Amino acid sequence: MRKLFSANHEEILHGETTDIYFKRTIQILEAKGLENTEVVAEIFPTHEGLLCGSEEIKNLLEGKKVEVWAQKEGTPFKAKDTIVRIKGPYGEFGIFETAMLGILASSSGWATAARECKEAAGGKLVISFGARHVHPAVASVMDRAAVIGGADGASSILGAKILNLKPSGTMPHALVLIIGDTVQAAEAFDRVVEPEVPRVILVDTFHDEAEESLRVARALKEKLSGVRLDTPKERGGVTPDLVREVRARLDQAGFPFVKIFVSGGLNPEKIRILSEAGADAFGVGSYISSAKPIEMTMDLKEVKGVPLAKRGRIPGPIENPLLERIL
Amino acid sequence: MRKLFSANHEEILHGETTDIYFKRTIQILEAKGLENTEVVAEIFPTHEGLLCGSEEIKNLLEGKKVEVWAQKEGTPFKAKDTIVRIKGPYGEFGIFETAMLGILASSSGWATAARECKEAAGGKLVISFGARHVHPAVASVMDRAAVIGGADGASSILGAKILNLKPSGTMPHALVLIIGDTVQAAEAFDRVVEPEVPRVILVDTFHDEAEESLRVARALKEKLSGVRLDTPKERGGVTPDLVREVRARLDQAGFPFVKIFVSGGLNPEKIRILSEAGADAFGVGSYISSAKPIEMTMDLKEVKGVPLAKRGRIPGPIENPLLERIL
Amino acid sequence: MRKLFSANHEEILHGETTDIYFKRTIQILEAKGLENTEVVAEIFPTHEGLLCGSEEIKNLLEGKKVEVWAQKEGTPFKAKDTIVRIKGPYGEFGIFETAMLGILASSSGWATAARECKEAAGGKLVISFGARHVHPAVASVMDRAAVIGGADGASSILGAKILNLKPSGTMPHALVLIIGDTVQAAEAFDRVVEPEVPRVILVDTFHDEAEESLRVARALKEKLSGVRLDTPKERGGVTPDLVREVRARLDQAGFPFVKIFVSGGLNPEKIRILSEAGADAFGVGSYISSAKPIEMTMDLKEVKGVPLAKRGRIPGPIENPLLERIL
Amino acid sequence: MRKLFSANHEEILHGETTDIYFKRTIQILEAKGLENTEVVAEIFPTHEGLLCGSEEIKNLLEGKKVEVWAQKEGTPFKAKDTIVRIKGPYGEFGIFETAMLGILASSSGWATAARECKEAAGGKLVISFGARHVHPAVASVMDRAAVIGGADGASSILGAKILNLKPSGTMPHALVLIIGDTVQAAEAFDRVVEPEVPRVILVDTFHDEAEESLRVARALKEKLSGVRLDTPKERGGVTPDLVREVRARLDQAGFPFVKIFVSGGLNPEKIRILSEAGADAFGVGSYISSAKPIEMTMDLKEVKGVPLAKRGRIPGPIENPLLERIL
Amino acid sequence: MRKLFSANHEEILHGETTDIYFKRTIQILEAKGLENTEVVAEIFPTHEGLLCGSEEIKNLLEGKKVEVWAQKEGTPFKAKDTIVRIKGPYGEFGIFETAMLGILASSSGWATAARECKEAAGGKLVISFGARHVHPAVASVMDRAAVIGGADGASSILGAKILNLKPSGTMPHALVLIIGDTVQAAEAFDRVVEPEVPRVILVDTFHDEAEESLRVARALKEKLSGVRLDTPKERGGVTPDLVREVRARLDQAGFPFVKIFVSGGLNPEKIRILSEAGADAFGVGSYISSAKPIEMTMDLKEVKGVPLAKRGRIPGPIENPLLERIL
Amino acid sequence: MRKLFSANHEEILHGETTDIYFKRTIQILEAKGLENTEVVAEIFPTHEGLLCGSEEIKNLLEGKKVEVWAQKEGTPFKAKDTIVRIKGPYGEFGIFETAMLGILASSSGWATAARECKEAAGGKLVISFGARHVHPAVASVMDRAAVIGGADGASSILGAKILNLKPSGTMPHALVLIIGDTVQAAEAFDRVVEPEVPRVILVDTFHDEAEESLRVARALKEKLSGVRLDTPKERGGVTPDLVREVRARLDQAGFPFVKIFVSGGLNPEKIRILSEAGADAFGVGSYISSAKPIEMTMDLKEVKGVPLAKRGRIPGPIENPLLERIL
Repeated sequence: MRKLFSANHEEILHGETTDIYFKRTIQILEAKGLENTEVVAEIFPTHEGLLCGSEEIKNLLEGKKVEVWAQKEGTPFKAKDTIVRIKGPYGEFGIFETAMLGILASSSGWATAARECKEAAGGKLVISFGARHVHPAVASVMDRAAVIGGADGASSILGAKILNLKPSGTMPHALVLIIGDTVQAAEAFDRVVEPEVPRVILVDTFHDEAEESLRVARALKEKLSGVRLDTPKERGGVTPDLVREVRARLDQAGFPFVKIFVSGGLNPEKIRILSEAGADAFGVGSYISSAKPIEMTMDLKEVKGVPLAKRGRIPGPIENPLLERIL
Repeated sequence: MRKLFSANHEEILHGETTDIYFKRTIQILEAKGLENTEVVAEIFPTHEGLLCGSEEIKNLLEGKKVEVWAQKEGTPFKAKDTIVRIKGPYGEFGIFETAMLGILASSSGWATAARECKEAAGGKLVISFGARHVHPAVASVMDRAAVIGGADGASSILGAKILNLKPSGTMPHALVLIIGDTVQAAEAFDRVVEPEVPRVILVDTFHDEAEESLRVARALKEKLSGVRLDTPKERGGVTPDLVREVRARLDQAGFPFVKIFVSGGLNPEKIRILSEAGADAFGVGSYISSAKPIEMTMDLKEVKGVPLAKRGRIPGPIENPLLERIL
Repeated sequence: MRKLFSANHEEILHGETTDIYFKRTIQILEAKGLENTEVVAEIFPTHEGLLCGSEEIKNLLEGKKVEVWAQKEGTPFKAKDTIVRIKGPYGEFGIFETAMLGILASSSGWATAARECKEAAGGKLVISFGARHVHPAVASVMDRAAVIGGADGASSILGAKILNLKPSGTMPHALVLIIGDTVQAAEAFDRVVEPEVPRVILVDTFHDEAEESLRVARALKEKLSGVRLDTPKERGGVTPDLVREVRARLDQAGFPFVKIFVSGGLNPEKIRILSEAGADAFGVGSYISSAKPIEMTMDLKEVKGVPLAKRGRIPGPIENPLLERIL
Repeated sequence: MRKLFSANHEEILHGETTDIYFKRTIQILEAKGLENTEVVAEIFPTHEGLLCGSEEIKNLLEGKKVEVWAQKEGTPFKAKDTIVRIKGPYGEFGIFETAMLGILASSSGWATAARECKEAAGGKLVISFGARHVHPAVASVMDRAAVIGGADGASSILGAKILNLKPSGTMPHALVLIIGDTVQAAEAFDRVVEPEVPRVILVDTFHDEAEESLRVARALKEKLSGVRLDTPKERGGVTPDLVREVRARLDQAGFPFVKIFVSGGLNPEKIRILSEAGADAFGVGSYISSAKPIEMTMDLKEVKGVPLAKRGRIPGPIENPLLERIL
Repeated sequence: MRKLFSANHEEILHGETTDIYFKRTIQILEAKGLENTEVVAEIFPTHEGLLCGSEEIKNLLEGKKVEVWAQKEGTPFKAKDTIVRIKGPYGEFGIFETAMLGILASSSGWATAARECKEAAGGKLVISFGARHVHPAVASVMDRAAVIGGADGASSILGAKILNLKPSGTMPHALVLIIGDTVQAAEAFDRVVEPEVPRVILVDTFHDEAEESLRVARALKEKLSGVRLDTPKERGGVTPDLVREVRARLDQAGFPFVKIFVSGGLNPEKIRILSEAGADAFGVGSYISSAKPIEMTMDLKEVKGVPLAKRGRIPGPIENPLLERIL
Repeated sequence: MRKLFSANHEEILHGETTDIYFKRTIQILEAKGLENTEVVAEIFPTHEGLLCGSEEIKNLLEGKKVEVWAQKEGTPFKAKDTIVRIKGPYGEFGIFETAMLGILASSSGWATAARECKEAAGGKLVISFGARHVHPAVASVMDRAAVIGGADGASSILGAKILNLKPSGTMPHALVLIIGDTVQAAEAFDRVVEPEVPRVILVDTFHDEAEESLRVARALKEKLSGVRLDTPKERGGVTPDLVREVRARLDQAGFPFVKIFVSGGLNPEKIRILSEAGADAFGVGSYISSAKPIEMTMDLKEVKGVPLAKRGRIPGPIENPLLERIL
């Protein structure tokens, strides 16, 4: 029995996630002997953004008898820019239209949102914390796109592995609740976890954040890398004044080296404000992971060497100097 | 070499898509001998919507030593309703928090958007056409959620298969462009595709939609099930007046039985307007597939039989009469 | 040397706070032998509200040779209603125009705002806490107006004395800061203050409000009347969720009888929301004390028995059935 | 019997206008022998503005065993600036918190509004005309604050006396109505009032303003200093076009030296517009006198030499170079 | 030499005001022998409104070999209703398309605006005063349309003559200015103008409106029919309070029978407010005369008996039960 | 019988379109022997704009015993600028006030709107196409005003004749519908119409615009001057993308010299956008022809050499250096 409704790699590679009408199209073209018609297809976005996904496109088409050009991952595009061009017999790649557009749309949406966060944070650390808002089948795709967009790390194990990074993360409220005290949880973390993982302790579980920050700092001393403020919105969320106060109290108590890591409903505007108030690192969840896909369209622009297009589009390929041959 | 960055089922089931800090939490609890602490955890949404995803939750936790309660898929929830409750040793399920939240958040987001479209369409047909806007790994999850939310069908092959439905779809512009004429494409479709698939022909590729509708109707006659209007926004999109005119011209020419199927940037408001103008069926893409996930939170509400909660939350389980024991 | 710039009672009663031109008017009229011209003057407001101040008007004019009618304090008026009418020689009362308008404008403004708060609170307690936002010379006038408008009590000693009430109040943050601990401050309060004063303890000084509420409840037990939440806006202010959580934690710990008293930036809208969340009493400061005065105008409407008025006003007295003879 | 509900100076100086809980605090501290605890307290505003009120603070604390620093009256402050600092035994000044905050909040509110009017008027004359909108006990405080904020004069007799100015004013409609004719009223004014008071005649009582302006000018000739336009809003208020027309008609008739004084619902925006249209002086009432108090907060920032603060505030004194020792 | 640039009747009837391309169309059709092609043409509006202009259409087409149906003048239509249908050889009427559409568009625009004013006025009098805002060549067309829309009279001599009404009007400011006094002008009007013309005197030229109303009423006594308030916007325009005051002063002085006629920038909203305040009649200028024409379109819907239409329109005539045969 | 309700030139010149009260004014003045009172009258606008109409004013007053100054047609004015001044006996011109104001108001409104369109079009062609929205009696006045405002041509035969221009125009949909095919209509046009008229063919009647453009271009070849896009709003109107596509397809097919002429609901904003997309010429209808008249007022400013004015206006003439003596 199938336990999960997401597609495995083989299903994707065999075209099983495609829209049914592409499969029927191939059938019809074969019936007319047209399946090998030479065409040029182009993919363009409806909004501006940052490209991500062309690596998977390349892997998907590898071994097919087509030539492929694409923009590099991480480069910006404008609405209607040609970001991928495919040349070859339609039967070789037509069935992958759905998958290719989906890969580009969702990956570029995530990368674009991550870029906005990184720009808001200036040089400061941005970590992708949004795996919990997407289906696990694409958590790693999302984390990878976030890093391509500019995030410095990601929390999902598979996402980090694909990126050849160590996954980033602090600790969940559950750990503190089960152990029953923030300082004891911090000390246990410090004893058990490999030394190269920075000690960033969550300080809003039981007591006031400023109070707990000082208790934890006094317990871990110079081993403490940072405190994480994740105040729930029921308590007003993380405010700039809270960041200022925790910073001041840590400094007054002799812990100027302890960083302030913030999370919870962050977006570029909040990142900007909290950064000015003294926050040092930002765990961004839904702003990146719930970013709308950037819609992509694939158009045939040449059939048997003749420029053409459907009504509403300019016939013939449209040049883009950023395109590079990838297959 | 890994061709795709999405996770296969085994990776998900082995916890590889989880946030790293859940793995560290288990390590720390084991070091303190606390991994089997009995807890009660509850999942709640931050916004109202329609539940989808509990089936995968059940499959994910099957075989673990836990009791699980959940709302049925397709039932509505309000913000802060308890929609899943898990009771058992934390070590049995803690690692799946990321996956479970992601499944519920994204599936419920898609189902909720589909419900809005179906309500806007009254009794008329709504088909999920959004596979092209999501990563292929979750196209089937999305199509399934859309149908649970109220859609009558879906275009992805795998999505339909999981739902025990036949996939729905008409034809792509590519088919018409390669064959070179809408009527010839229609005739080829009619010759080749199994007879139980309705003949719905795309009529905006080369010529005016009203003109092509009549040409196609004259060619396929009573075999023609419908025409599909997908006018690109460069040409003003599908307007209510276009629907009215095509309807009138088809009727005047003796084709009152030919249905009008519309697609392209539909949302509940447009569905309502086009339905009043006479459209019979709606292919909905991004409104469903790009719906924001509905954020979900999992809280420990009891540890070793004692009600508790982090600051900002009410300690102890919160009752919901819609919960049913699923494991 | 004058230590304060406010006017003492004798200065007001001698007309020293009046606009200079009223004094000159009397001079001029005397020079022309017109100071005893019989006139009818009427006072009306420019906006609707609740009347307050006619008691002081009566005291001010007592002993003058005039007849005076006025609406009762605490009754509502609409824009342009005649709320005070004075009949007699102009020289007897002309000089008090400035003082009378000022008394009515400011007192009615305060009473009107208090009424809105009381209506928002339903039957629950509203206490005027705004003495700190007005000059001490009028703190008692403001507190009296608030109670006439519907408040159940007031915090200023003089205001309460004038109203024959006991002043209401809990404790300042200063007490907790000097003693150094909320529970010790609560215990000292309980030992020292007369037993008929309810024990309402401020719980946001040092630690989390929910945590301190339980500590204080466990210390004072059934002697604890309530806890006061005054969370500063730097920490998100008092939110409905905080009220709900404190209520739930107090109930779970066996203190259902402990009331929740809220303060800090309250207005009718916030009172409504916090009341629904379970708050029992409301300390309202600036919404009442900073209420805009309701502008008042005094017009001569009859001179020597002849109806007249300046341009823009209807000549002759305007009836109002709510007027009662007070002098 | 008490005729007025406002506080006399002795009541204020004896702490009778204070919030009751400060009195109880002293009781409790005395019971614990803590009344002489050395503290540092600071006052800060929640919004930017112009400081007024520190003179009364100084008088209030004179003779107490405390050191006091404050900003000068008339200097601008920003939100959260320390504007007053008090150092000494808490028992010496704690009871005055309510009075001090009230003095600063209301005086600074009035001064700030006056400053805005003066800036809008450029170098032209602004007179405080708002005594009629506040309780007579504070009319003089308000007029003094208006002049500190930039007004050139004030209409209340006591207010002007405290400032060592002559009170400013023209004449009320009542004078014109009783005498029965604007020109006769003007001539009576001219005969009776001391010659150094400028002859500014109110011209909107009976006839059209432009018409009356010419009649009055022809009667008083070079003795006429100005005409005052106070058109009621029932007649459209004072419009820029009315000012232009009156100016033009006065000029054409040979009275270029007659100034135009306007009043009635003025605010900075209207002052700017009417000034451009040719108005020479502005009588401002409610914009100054009904200005909201600028909320002030007093925090203990040091107790027995140790920096501290309640949650939400930075512990320890906050420097402000504008502070000067005043006691 | 041509003194005016407007068209005389003969020019219009000879098609000289038509768009040039209709003339060329006839030439071309003649060259192809198609000028007598039988067609059905329909005219429809793009917005809802009140029909006016079909009388001129009838006169224009009289004597041509066509059948014509139209809605009655004064009946309401909705967007896209067929309001005129013409059947016959295209050559007979094609050249008049421009003229017919222009007549219907402008006349219906004026009539629709007049209807809104009349509805706002309830049963009270509305007079069209807008001749001064349109070219004199169409002042009479506009006045006629206003009366068809619901106005009770019109001020232009020719407009009234066409309607078989007496023209309505009071007096211009010029008359008062030349005679030099409102009362003298009123008396001269009363002496000279035929007795059946109501005496409505303009009272805002020299002095205050209320004052002049009383002067005029005392002079003309029971012969005075009404006073007209036309206060310029430089003086605040006619306000509801001014109407109330003039009404009250006239009543108090014994002239309850004198009507109040208002004019100057009226629109339905102002008419409603001034009517409530007591105004008896309304002179409406630009709201009617500057009303936007309601755009009209003429489409061929049948050619040689075959239903057809250009793209975007439903082929064939569209029924409307309100159409009546007029030729 | 009168066939049309518009006024012929003689009726206008004899004052029959005037407001009745001007006729009565002359009667009254004659009765008092005041008809020859020397006056100065001035006309001013209430909004800024571009002057048109002074030519007709001159013709209207020619032969009267008056001196007249006016601004030149085509020059800009601001609100309240004196744009016409008349000096002489009131009886000579008073009766023409209605006509003069109407001429100036409507002509200036049209000219101002045309100027905005021309500015939006940069150097490109703007043609007045709005005759169909105004009564035929003023179609020529409107077209003349549009050209004075900046339009390059106009479609009405009489309008063009008055301007000494050839009328501009392409072809109506009726021609294409009767002939039954766009290409045949184009060829007929080309055969019949004088060679100096540019061949601009309407391409949206039967088929898709891009498709028809190519068919027409292939038929007329280098004789084709342009194609006209007039897509009805039922089909989304003319969009920038449609212009871009037609341009691209014409260029690709070897017709870079064929211009794109657009029409249908154009306004300055749409002209700007379509011009950027490649449109070459603009047929503007209702934006010019339905422009609101710019209200004009005529005031007497001097009577018998004495400066005066009604209330609300500055007495005496107001200089304007742009005035020139025209009579």
